Amino acid sequence: MAYELHYWPGIPGRGEFVRLALEAAGADYVDVARGDEASGQGMAAMAHYLEDPSVAHPPFACPFLVDGKRVIGQTAAILLYLGPRLGLVARGEADQLWTHQIQLTIADLVTEAHDVHHPIGSSLYYEQQRPEALRRAADFRSNRLPKFVGWFEAVLQRNPRNEGRAMPHLIGARLSYADLSLFQVVEGLRYALPKAAARALKKAPLVTQLNAGVCAHKRLAAYLASDRRLPFNEQGIFRHYPELDG
Amino acid sequence: MAYELHYWPGIPGRGEFVRLALEAAGADYVDVARGDEASGQGMAAMAHYLEDPSVAHPPFACPFLVDGKRVIGQTAAILLYLGPRLGLVARGEADQLWTHQIQLTIADLVTEAHDVHHPIGSSLYYEQQRPEALRRAADFRSNRLPKFVGWFEAVLQRNPRNEGRAMPHLIGARLSYADLSLFQVVEGLRYALPKAAARALKKAPLVTQLNAGVCAHKRLAAYLASDRRLPFNEQGIFRHYPELDG
Repeated sequence: MAYELHYWPGIPGRGEFVRLALEAAGADYVDVARGDEASGQGMAAMAHYLEDPSVAHPPFACPFLVDGKRVIGQTAAILLYLGPRLGLVARGEADQLWTHQIQLTIADLVTEAHDVHHPIGSSLYYEQQRPEALRRAADFRSNRLPKFVGWFEAVLQRNPRNEGRAMPHLIGARLSYADLSLFQVVEGLRYALPKAAARALKKAPLVTQLNAGVCAHKRLAAYLASDRRLPFNEQGIFRHYPELDG
Repeated sequence: MAYELHYWPGIPGRGEFVRLALEAAGADYVDVARGDEASGQGMAAMAHYLEDPSVAHPPFACPFLVDGKRVIGQTAAILLYLGPRLGLVARGEADQLWTHQIQLTIADLVTEAHDVHHPIGSSLYYEQQRPEALRRAADFRSNRLPKFVGWFEAVLQRNPRNEGRAMPHLIGARLSYADLSLFQVVEGLRYALPKAAARALKKAPLVTQLNAGVCAHKRLAAYLASDRRLPFNEQGIFRHYPELDG
């Protein structure tokens, strides 16, 4: 049975971290909220899991994955579940936990990248929190972004399996869901804050190489060129407001 | 060998979520950064793992757990690791993943509770972001806090094992690390925003009952009365600034 991915149809957002894993593995999946209401998909199908009191394990928010009777929310938990099933994580417990730890750190960066343009609250428009966003963006560019990128670079440097390889990996010698998520967050930051991202990446050659490697992956290259790949835009997590790029 | 917990000595912060699990299970552990430099503990022992390039799996931040050769960062990942070892999670994969998903949602609430007083950046003092904090706190009190507490209450309501029990659990019929973490975040919110927390909890009788049940747990009651339990204060995640409580 196909996996069901449930996420807002108009933005890559957090759903894209799951989508990239499904696409890289060539998994059979349905992008439910982007589907047709007439065939039982669309937003109504997604709303059921979020709102119906009969759902025993309600997700707090999108994205969530439905696999048969299982309903799994939280991006990192979805990837923890899918990783071994899609062959996108190593077999041992220690490597799986390290992969998950890196994923949770990526999740922290995603939240901070969102809060750059929404420091006061998601219930308000960007225009209602622009002065605050200018201040938060300055702190993000100077402190947080370099700290996160520096940490990813250190993780890549300390992976002994990367020596002499053109395509480095965060864990071991094979592609993992964390590699895919790092690719996505770097792409998002390049879109949102091109100047700040370029400055940070100049000091992170391995992160830059990993991103190029993901783009060259055969299945992912086909996916990225398809209309299944949603472009970044100003409704999502990574938004390009030039005034925030300093 | 004793587990090593590494976290800032002066605040409960995110370390407390791990400490509560260790204490509830009566596990043998060392609170390293609170220990004596002369016996190889203290801040220097903690700094080693964060700063020394010889550490293969560096944590991005505290808390982290050292168990023999394993170094595990990210609060939720630490609890994912400790849960089965301490008997604080059910045995099956589905229950373990659901417990983890709830834990990740608690982690999101913890981050938002922190950002109430630090909406612009952790590198600045509260006093440097007070006007922004006043706005963010209003959004948190009106929108986010009731949404999170309502979700925890729904999870407790939908757990069929809670029917007719004085002490409800988030998952199944036994105490889990997620129960302990929910207790901690509720205690933190009661400290930081007593009026807003009371309003939200008035509509969440099961959350309130769970908290009372945790306080009455024999080992935890002894721990909470000991000097191992750090009080909340204005250096930590949950800070009481009366002007933010509306």
